[in-house]
Amino acid sequence: MVGDITVRIIEGKGISWVKGFSAIGIKAGIKKSGSMDLCLIYSEKPAVAAATFTTNIVKAAPVLIDMQQIKQDHVRALVINSGNANACTGEEGYQNAVTMAEETASALAIKSSEVLVYSTGIIGVQLPIDIVKAGIKTCASQLVHEADDHAAEAIMTTDNIIKSIFVEVVLSEKTVSIAGMAKGSGMIHPNMATMLSYIVTDAAITKALLTEMHKTSVDGSYNMISIDGDTSTNDTATIVANGCAENPLIDSKNQDYDQLKEAIDFINVFLAKKIASDGEGATKLVEVDLKGAVSLADARLCARGIISSNLVKAAMHGSDANWGRVLCAMGYSGGGFDPAKAEVSFKSWAGEITVFSGGMPAIFDEEQACQILKQEVVTILINLYDGDFEAKAWGCDLSPEYVKFNGSYRS
Amino acid sequence: MVGDITVRIIEGKGISWVKGFSAIGIKAGIKKSGSMDLCLIYSEKPAVAAATFTTNIVKAAPVLIDMQQIKQDHVRALVINSGNANACTGEEGYQNAVTMAEETASALAIKSSEVLVYSTGIIGVQLPIDIVKAGIKTCASQLVHEADDHAAEAIMTTDNIIKSIFVEVVLSEKTVSIAGMAKGSGMIHPNMATMLSYIVTDAAITKALLTEMHKTSVDGSYNMISIDGDTSTNDTATIVANGCAENPLIDSKNQDYDQLKEAIDFINVFLAKKIASDGEGATKLVEVDLKGAVSLADARLCARGIISSNLVKAAMHGSDANWGRVLCAMGYSGGGFDPAKAEVSFKSWAGEITVFSGGMPAIFDEEQACQILKQEVVTILINLYDGDFEAKAWGCDLSPEYVKFNGSYRS
Repeated sequence: MVGDITVRIIEGKGISWVKGFSAIGIKAGIKKSGSMDLCLIYSEKPAVAAATFTTNIVKAAPVLIDMQQIKQDHVRALVINSGNANACTGEEGYQNAVTMAEETASALAIKSSEVLVYSTGIIGVQLPIDIVKAGIKTCASQLVHEADDHAAEAIMTTDNIIKSIFVEVVLSEKTVSIAGMAKGSGMIHPNMATMLSYIVTDAAITKALLTEMHKTSVDGSYNMISIDGDTSTNDTATIVANGCAENPLIDSKNQDYDQLKEAIDFINVFLAKKIASDGEGATKLVEVDLKGAVSLADARLCARGIISSNLVKAAMHGSDANWGRVLCAMGYSGGGFDPAKAEVSFKSWAGEITVFSGGMPAIFDEEQACQILKQEVVTILINLYDGDFEAKAWGCDLSPEYVKFNGSYRS
Repeated sequence: MVGDITVRIIEGKGISWVKGFSAIGIKAGIKKSGSMDLCLIYSEKPAVAAATFTTNIVKAAPVLIDMQQIKQDHVRALVINSGNANACTGEEGYQNAVTMAEETASALAIKSSEVLVYSTGIIGVQLPIDIVKAGIKTCASQLVHEADDHAAEAIMTTDNIIKSIFVEVVLSEKTVSIAGMAKGSGMIHPNMATMLSYIVTDAAITKALLTEMHKTSVDGSYNMISIDGDTSTNDTATIVANGCAENPLIDSKNQDYDQLKEAIDFINVFLAKKIASDGEGATKLVEVDLKGAVSLADARLCARGIISSNLVKAAMHGSDANWGRVLCAMGYSGGGFDPAKAEVSFKSWAGEITVFSGGMPAIFDEEQACQILKQEVVTILINLYDGDFEAKAWGCDLSPEYVKFNGSYRS
């Protein structure tokens, strides 16, 4: 149960199990490590698509292209390479991104305007375009349906775990499949960071409603996570729907819309949490669960303020019940609240403890608080007692390993 | 020479060497460590004062009091304790801050409305008010003039170095003295962080002009530093001028105003850099020197974006010439610029190297870049080639030690 709808989660299935989609991930040779680095997703029918792009002024070449392509009525294919971000690569980089779209179109006998292009990895190095071109041909010839497609593996960079999920929902008696995959790790912050997220579904829905649903869902999921406060040049969340489930076309905000929206929210939050807990050097997932704000905007600002604070993250790493830093982070977040009413508690499977209440520190057992914070999933509960709005945000702790890792990323 | 004026820097002098001021720092017993923790500054004549306060919604009790007191025509004394922030301490904390002002007034035979009160240290613990009261009496009886006052030492918390400076300028043939001291370390970020800064001068100037001068100076100094992105509950920058130098009263923006302003800018930037280089776990001072922006606002946003980025800070720690992170941080800073024109260089006493130019990575010697970045003071030079505005910002690297330190601060 997710809210009041039923979502069936199926283990072991991925992108290529969605009706009308095929996919493949391969080792094209872009990464020095020899790991998988190229992924192709193909829809046998024209599909509607929506995407949210990084707000960074410095946008990678594929982002610039996709911002145009997404305006088309439909798409047919997505091509994604990891190991190289094709960012800060000038005119040559832009041409390489165009070439990726053209090569994909040619290999699949579709138009290049029907292809979305993505890159993730190191910034400022030109793509080995001949390797990429050969890889695209290989991908096109190896596409699979209802098989082990390796798509979620091929988009990883510094990720430690594969982030993938497959769910089914029933819309007007038709089973609709939805697969999601993402890559994350460093530079994750509200408003799109080094993050790529993909949802493909066989639902039938108009482009306008898909776009609206997607934006709202991204605001409550990927835009509410923070690993290190940096927002990257490449990040994009994309959703594609090809209608192959043959459910009645969703062209108004009816019950089917609501059900699909809840399933998609579920997937995006699932993937956002996976990204947060897989932050570089992270040892635990930290969730902020904030209630009682006077507006949604205030709720989100306060929740993001907490999850983005280096000092809160460091305290979480040390399992230190430092509610002062939590309050302080809300205080400079830009979100409005009354410190004299706010309540702060910490929660995990080991228990729950209130540490600040009514403008004053609560008397609590430090040892018990430490035990609660030592767990792998920790929730910071906030009640502002000011209104009816709430927000959740996700992040990780800040560890010495994060710094070690990021002091030598390029080497 | 600072710009086009001459400032004489005198080693070994502090607050109490300014005409008409006396001061003292003592071990009152607030800190468990037994270090100095209480400081009193007294002006024999009524002095005009100006202050900038933390923008955090959660404001410590002394901040709430000083925001009212600063509206008075003049002040006579400043009392500062370290070891306890008197923040998130409710009504009792507020009363304790009032008591600090009253006790100081009583000991000095002045009005409590003439006293400014400051606290810094741990959040959420009540002040040991009896110890503080006794300490204030001791301070009042031990005030010194032109002697070793220990003022700058008594305001330290996690600081490693004393931050203090004394300069003289000649205004209309009268020698004016200016002493500055500050404490910083963790939680330093643009818009006032866990930072206290004090300037006392014997200059004669109107309160209105002192206030304007102070605000402008703070915007270009303390508001351009970042240690860890957190903005604290207590921070305040205060300036006090008692007129004892008997220079002609500065009541318009004449040459004396400009000279005094430059001296005060020099002191604030000096102290801001000291705070930045003394960041928790810092191994080097990082300076951003940005030119060619279309507006001052864009210049400052871009410079602050770079200095505030965890990924840039971590790269600086690893002496990694990662210009991608520098560009990326400017890109999400909110400051406007054209990535295709921007130039990024790194500089230290070991040399200067351009790493990004005209929208493309420059070809450079990685080994040489690493040597430049390995030094204790590193400058990130930016030219946006877009306009005539410039800004400087200061910060430090992000080290594994920072995280270790902040994972166990309260213990």
